[in-house]
Amino acid sequence: MILTNNDYIGYQGVPGAYSEEALITFFGENNKTIRYDDFEDVIKGVLSEEIKYGILPIENSSTGAITSVYDLHKIYNVYIVGEQMIKINHNLLGIKNSFISDINEIYSHPQGFEQSSKFLKSHPTWKQIAYFNTAMSASLVNEKQNKSFAAVASKRAAKIFNLEILAENINNDSTNTTRFIIIGKHLEKDDEFNKISLLLRISNEVGSLYGVIKRLADQNINMLKIESRPIEGIPWEYDFFIDIDGNLKDEQLCHSLSNLEKSAHQIKILGNYKKGQSL
Amino acid sequence: MILTNNDYIGYQGVPGAYSEEALITFFGENNKTIRYDDFEDVIKGVLSEEIKYGILPIENSSTGAITSVYDLHKIYNVYIVGEQMIKINHNLLGIKNSFISDINEIYSHPQGFEQSSKFLKSHPTWKQIAYFNTAMSASLVNEKQNKSFAAVASKRAAKIFNLEILAENINNDSTNTTRFIIIGKHLEKDDEFNKISLLLRISNEVGSLYGVIKRLADQNINMLKIESRPIEGIPWEYDFFIDIDGNLKDEQLCHSLSNLEKSAHQIKILGNYKKGQSL
Repeated sequence: MILTNNDYIGYQGVPGAYSEEALITFFGENNKTIRYDDFEDVIKGVLSEEIKYGILPIENSSTGAITSVYDLHKIYNVYIVGEQMIKINHNLLGIKNSFISDINEIYSHPQGFEQSSKFLKSHPTWKQIAYFNTAMSASLVNEKQNKSFAAVASKRAAKIFNLEILAENINNDSTNTTRFIIIGKHLEKDDEFNKISLLLRISNEVGSLYGVIKRLADQNINMLKIESRPIEGIPWEYDFFIDIDGNLKDEQLCHSLSNLEKSAHQIKILGNYKKGQSL
Repeated sequence: MILTNNDYIGYQGVPGAYSEEALITFFGENNKTIRYDDFEDVIKGVLSEEIKYGILPIENSSTGAITSVYDLHKIYNVYIVGEQMIKINHNLLGIKNSFISDINEIYSHPQGFEQSSKFLKSHPTWKQIAYFNTAMSASLVNEKQNKSFAAVASKRAAKIFNLEILAENINNDSTNTTRFIIIGKHLEKDDEFNKISLLLRISNEVGSLYGVIKRLADQNINMLKIESRPIEGIPWEYDFFIDIDGNLKDEQLCHSLSNLEKSAHQIKILGNYKKGQSL
């Protein structure tokens, strides 16, 4: 991964977003960044070379896959070149001098609500308003200066948008972590890389998913994760996103993957990269 | 499945909900029904015997698993005793004499928004407010009688809550179908049943998911679907929900499933039932 002084990196959201935190953790401070409103815009930015790399959330340890990001891999040809885990602690943020008893309208990304569902269940009268992302929700609450509004977002967002923390760490699961992927326009290879992501569309015959998994196992390839996603327009058929251990410089592995292609209808290598450190 | 005149059936939502439609399609008209606010309450109703059966959405053909319903199977011991597919067509519903140009606040279940995301993207200024379910959103819009409010819900809900259809069939995918499960307190067996649902927690060793799938394939058991869900508190480990072809009256199959238990850490039979007809 080579980044020059002229290269931009992109993320979805605004300063204070967990995505921006993941970007800084992975690439360091002092990079040129561009923010986008949508996940899809980050991918388009990579493809148009407006940015060299983009960062997207792919999976949360409590709520599972960020399915819209998985599904974008079916449409666009970008490659995964890295991953970064970020600890997610949500907080209820209101304007200065507001109290939890003032609140009747809360803003966050739907995942922010879902990951804080146990806390929110004890406030059933609050209107939950789905918004672009957690930090933009905090920005909106700051902008409105209305005591009845609150955002579900990070402490970093509270600081950036000058908000009061009305309730701390309201996420259901204290180990709540999000895995982010770094995407680029080209497939990258490096001796250090140890994880490969694949997208498989398998023929709908008896045992065909098994056939693919057997070929992986026969060659001692370890499957780290399997995620099934519906195929649009074909109810009850699925694409499979599979992560395995491996490096694409390993010729035997590449041979195995081309063998795999014979048993799967379609196989797409989504990227080779270094496994992110678990937190 | 035996239902007497004294038995109640439960669903989540209000009259006009897709769940109620699934209930009527599966059980017929003229049953005693109870409506609940939450998916979890339907399960509790089954366990407390307030209702004999409950109906819950488990998977949508466009957006995938209803993950919260999958996850409830990890907590509660209820059994799947049937399934029903229902075609889902979302519409934008406003009060009488309102126009699409009046709208600035829309209510629906988050899945209603997600399944209609392409249409909603062309109205980026509308506030999307997550609500309990699509029909309750229609009920709320009717109650408020505010021209700037709309709901994303069914035509049936429009009729029941006396609303105007401002935009028709706004779902991204015209084949959009939801699969519902019928749950009961006891495991049921019947010669007609041809589908089995399993929950597997597999030890985190290399190839152990493969080991389980191999045992299924070795005995010619066809895997219909695999869904992975995170294990709360253990980031990046998964439970697997697997559907297979089969009938629990088949002794050889039962023997195979008990063999499976040797390779999986934990296996739970979630139910045996008749496959719902694809639409």
